[in-house]
Amino acid sequence: MEEVSPLTLNRLSFYLRCLRHLQESGVSRVSSQEMAQRYHLSATQIRKDLAQFGEFGIRGVGYDVDALATHLSSLLGLDRHHALLIVGMGNLGSALAQYLGFNYGSFRVVAAVDNDPRKIGRKVANLTVRSSADLKEVVRESGAEIGVLAVPAEAAQENYDALADAGIKGVLNFAPVRVKRRTNVPLKNVDLRINLEELAFFLR
Amino acid sequence: MEEVSPLTLNRLSFYLRCLRHLQESGVSRVSSQEMAQRYHLSATQIRKDLAQFGEFGIRGVGYDVDALATHLSSLLGLDRHHALLIVGMGNLGSALAQYLGFNYGSFRVVAAVDNDPRKIGRKVANLTVRSSADLKEVVRESGAEIGVLAVPAEAAQENYDALADAGIKGVLNFAPVRVKRRTNVPLKNVDLRINLEELAFFLR
Repeated sequence: MEEVSPLTLNRLSFYLRCLRHLQESGVSRVSSQEMAQRYHLSATQIRKDLAQFGEFGIRGVGYDVDALATHLSSLLGLDRHHALLIVGMGNLGSALAQYLGFNYGSFRVVAAVDNDPRKIGRKVANLTVRSSADLKEVVRESGAEIGVLAVPAEAAQENYDALADAGIKGVLNFAPVRVKRRTNVPLKNVDLRINLEELAFFLR
Repeated sequence: MEEVSPLTLNRLSFYLRCLRHLQESGVSRVSSQEMAQRYHLSATQIRKDLAQFGEFGIRGVGYDVDALATHLSSLLGLDRHHALLIVGMGNLGSALAQYLGFNYGSFRVVAAVDNDPRKIGRKVANLTVRSSADLKEVVRESGAEIGVLAVPAEAAQENYDALADAGIKGVLNFAPVRVKRRTNVPLKNVDLRINLEELAFFLR
């Protein structure tokens, strides 16, 4: 399973989002062609991506929207809860605590740490900011699985390493820098700027 | 050109990022196979995506890294400057001003607005926050092309409309809500949670 490409995962997440949109719109059955047309995707790509993971859909009938959404949710590990720990409670960390903490089924922010004494002890989005020095303890007590790095670029590597040492299972890195990953602690780099590049295409 | 799918654009942006990484690593020539292997992509997909936009690379020799990076930059509209205006200077808006404002060739944050009187007039990342009520004037004076929505979900639609009325050419929406777009003002929704879903896959 480890050899699923990040672009395939990105597409599966996107398909799931389309299916949720169809659910909201009251659509219960959809073909790969309809889905492709509605969301500007490739029907061939949809069929190919899904075929990697099993037999969904019936030729000439299409996919059962609810069933496929459930399958994809489970495939993406969204059928169980994930506890998040945010590292770095500056503007970005605070925004993420508010943004990710609300109302999002599988994910819940359970803890936040910072190394700035002025921030430690403060309340942000119902969390009390703890000291980075107590990271191991915070991870153990909170049961956090995923670490979210919202630190300056120069602090990203040391904080990734500290999270890995503290037993975190995966890291989402918002710092605009390449972090050297350990094989047993998956890392996903989020580059917010890539979204701007996609938009710029339409403004040429 | 308008019919290029968002997933293709996403891939082109990703390829460009890989090429920049190769440039940093001193690699001057790369085949689609090498690129696929190094960045966990599909070689067929790379060739197919690039073929849509012209003849790059030489069979058996591969791509010239610098030339392809330049081509993709230009294709994505990154060979010229884009001025950004941030709407909403809470935690997320402030984080984006700092994050996007720094040192990023084609994009520059030139203005920020908020409707909270306590924020208007404050300095954030070298910008003075202006009043949302003066949006048209701010857009005209600053020459902003792209609006970045960092407002609460319930305020996203009205602010998108206000940006469109003020002559903004494209909008990047960080509010976790579907915004009804106008045909002449491209909109890109950024859902930060999709990144968590991709990471969750590896933690099942």
